[in-house]
Amino acid sequence: MKKSIAVDMDGVLADVYQQFILKHFNECGETLKLEQLEGLSEAVAFPYLLKHVHSPGFFKTAPLVPGSLEVLLELNQKYDIYIVSAATEFPLSLGEKQDWLHEHFPFIHWMQMVFCGSKKIIHTDIMIDDHFKNLDPFEGKTILFTQPHNKNAASGRHQRVNNWEEIKNILLP
Amino acid sequence: MKKSIAVDMDGVLADVYQQFILKHFNECGETLKLEQLEGLSEAVAFPYLLKHVHSPGFFKTAPLVPGSLEVLLELNQKYDIYIVSAATEFPLSLGEKQDWLHEHFPFIHWMQMVFCGSKKIIHTDIMIDDHFKNLDPFEGKTILFTQPHNKNAASGRHQRVNNWEEIKNILLP
Repeated sequence: MKKSIAVDMDGVLADVYQQFILKHFNECGETLKLEQLEGLSEAVAFPYLLKHVHSPGFFKTAPLVPGSLEVLLELNQKYDIYIVSAATEFPLSLGEKQDWLHEHFPFIHWMQMVFCGSKKIIHTDIMIDDHFKNLDPFEGKTILFTQPHNKNAASGRHQRVNNWEEIKNILLP
Repeated sequence: MKKSIAVDMDGVLADVYQQFILKHFNECGETLKLEQLEGLSEAVAFPYLLKHVHSPGFFKTAPLVPGSLEVLLELNQKYDIYIVSAATEFPLSLGEKQDWLHEHFPFIHWMQMVFCGSKKIIHTDIMIDDHFKNLDPFEGKTILFTQPHNKNAASGRHQRVNNWEEIKNILLP
């Protein structure tokens, strides 16, 4: 029987940092560097965050995290993949996230999509996420995807990865 | 610690049979009776089903299942309630279902909403649903909500209820 993986979207598949940096520049002309955002929560790093996540198109036009397409395509052959995304906080994001998945990951079936608020009731063998709030209560194997907001934190029981190549090495040895 | 319940929407909170019967009448002038639909799958009972679930407003204007509001309000005090709805098959339904919940169940927080395809990775203590495909793989306590499509089927290990009053008697004794 295949093992199951819950794969996060924002910060794992969708490069929301690049999207926030672009929107921040459009807002005020300042170019933020990833390095200066390390250790800051996203809400602190991006003062216009709430405005931007409630703006049409924010989620639909987010760029891909490098390597995510190629590795997820392979993982989808050997694991039961579920894309599990916190989306109900931002009503616009529901439709946009589904459109984004159809566009960029056409091999992900609608049966494999979960849009939720809390991830506490998600039960798979493995979870890949960039937020401790999702990984900490999870009972299975946990993989912490590095993003500036978690970069300085001790990963604890979670296995830290810095890119999709490292996920491939762990899950497709 | 509170026990958790995954509560289905269509056929449990939202009275989709009444909605399908109305749309069927508008489509062809025939008034379907619930009794004549017993034992038929929804797809067979409602030949225009696919057209209607893909039409704007179908999910947003569905009436409430009687008693659901009062009992869910009480359950929400004593249990961790999650509304878990299969929605990703019908892209329009995502936003409409969230709007519908906000309108009819304003005490349900966005953290308590899950819109998915398959419910196989949902893990709560209890599940209330009208479809065997959701209840059968579920490991916790299962409550089968009677709807015409399941009325003639043996409930098996699932506890059958015919209305929200019976749910109240089981979960709020």
